Amino acid sequence: MASDRVVALLGVGVVPSDTPVLRADDLGVLRGDGCFETMHVRDGAPWLLDEHLARMARSAARLGVALPPAAALADLAAQACAAWPADREGAVRLVCTRGPEDGGGPVTVFATVAPVSEVTVRARRAGIAVRTATLGYPADVRAAAPWLLGGAKTLSYAVNMASQRWAASVGADDVLWVSTDGYVLEAPTSTVVWREGATLYTVPAERTGILAGLTARWLLDHAGSLGFRAAERMVTPAELAAADGVWFLSSVRGVAPVRSLDGEATRTDPAETDTLRRFLGYP
Amino acid sequence: MASDRVVALLGVGVVPSDTPVLRADDLGVLRGDGCFETMHVRDGAPWLLDEHLARMARSAARLGVALPPAAALADLAAQACAAWPADREGAVRLVCTRGPEDGGGPVTVFATVAPVSEVTVRARRAGIAVRTATLGYPADVRAAAPWLLGGAKTLSYAVNMASQRWAASVGADDVLWVSTDGYVLEAPTSTVVWREGATLYTVPAERTGILAGLTARWLLDHAGSLGFRAAERMVTPAELAAADGVWFLSSVRGVAPVRSLDGEATRTDPAETDTLRRFLGYP
Repeated sequence: MASDRVVALLGVGVVPSDTPVLRADDLGVLRGDGCFETMHVRDGAPWLLDEHLARMARSAARLGVALPPAAALADLAAQACAAWPADREGAVRLVCTRGPEDGGGPVTVFATVAPVSEVTVRARRAGIAVRTATLGYPADVRAAAPWLLGGAKTLSYAVNMASQRWAASVGADDVLWVSTDGYVLEAPTSTVVWREGATLYTVPAERTGILAGLTARWLLDHAGSLGFRAAERMVTPAELAAADGVWFLSSVRGVAPVRSLDGEATRTDPAETDTLRRFLGYP
Repeated sequence: MASDRVVALLGVGVVPSDTPVLRADDLGVLRGDGCFETMHVRDGAPWLLDEHLARMARSAARLGVALPPAAALADLAAQACAAWPADREGAVRLVCTRGPEDGGGPVTVFATVAPVSEVTVRARRAGIAVRTATLGYPADVRAAAPWLLGGAKTLSYAVNMASQRWAASVGADDVLWVSTDGYVLEAPTSTVVWREGATLYTVPAERTGILAGLTARWLLDHAGSLGFRAAERMVTPAELAAADGVWFLSSVRGVAPVRSLDGEATRTDPAETDTLRRFLGYP
């Protein structure tokens, strides 16, 4: 099957993209047991590489997975990106599974680079229609229950994918997960950011067990350059719908304006989205 | 690495167990996106094969994964079991992932047969010390939120595995997940069954979104042969601790007596466990 993807294995280098690389007893597939990161490839290199490697180390620590050193992972990502056209944007993934179930084998580590889909590129300008849906958790339950793996970016994304399929089935582009006690959490593959007056907000990650979004973090850390303050707070869907602008931030899509929330138009301004997108360096 | 495992691929047959079988872009590893079943191999064949294939079809339907027909999966399991010594008990797994991310490829389907671990065999007689832990959900939230994949046996088991690692870290053998509103749900890889007087109980699956346990189902469906009635009901950990007997039922371990719950000894009678184990056909 034709594939537009680069695949590189730790200690091996780039291999044909249809090469089988995981054994049948790899815990990455049997249990979704491992962690990953996805980064935006621009000018031939992953953006925010150090931040993503640091988060991957935190995920691995929560899982008790023996992640290789950051330098080895950075080399692997570089090998994969070197085989990708420097003038083409892409998405590089780093994956580390717990390895084979038999014999306590070493972790399985690989990198892939893939194109950014047309749907993703379109969403940056056209925006997305978002539906809220429960994640089933009270907002604070994961902070006190580390076995629920809050904040870890694991390979167990079946619920994330099912939530997005559910959104598509009701005519939406994406989902915003809400806690059982009525607070906005995150999207299956994005972090929500909103503006009220001169402040850009996001949801506190520690308290809620959501993934600490790195693209959102970068934006809030540099908000001053755009004349904004930055803060975190708990928010309800109703408050979000009344905000001066709402965006989903993620590594590959960058910034996607939330055009509507549960069918109601938001006040997100396309010109402001353009400003944010350029500031974040997305085409 | 020496492996005691049989691996068989759909349409290919048995291959060496260390053969890589999944591409780097297989959604089974990138997203834990797929479903599986594990069955006890006795006398060279999977026990309750039809029931497991029916549950796998339900899981696949909830995921929207194009599972091959039951006959093809039964053949695959038979091929794998034929390469396993008929006089040795084992665990056969059937796995179906959504397949490669690129090109909307076909599903990836394989079977493995592996030995039953010594820890598992020992638990059948020695019993298990169990700790309760929150699953983070109210008991009824998943029934109304199909995107949370309640009742589907998916490859996204990172939380299941992390819960069991947490149990080990506090000196226990297994976990019993409890809802945020105080009801017993299930264990990460088992169904709880308990006896009060002449009735064997389990937790209702539809209402709670737990996996409908097939070994527990078989036991309750045949409880009359042992002179018991069978019923389902919601139960609290305190009620469970006061029951006349508590067991964890699962395909490979069969029946594991719960020796203690949160450090307090249960009233589970070893002689009764022997009766149940023999009745279920486990050595």
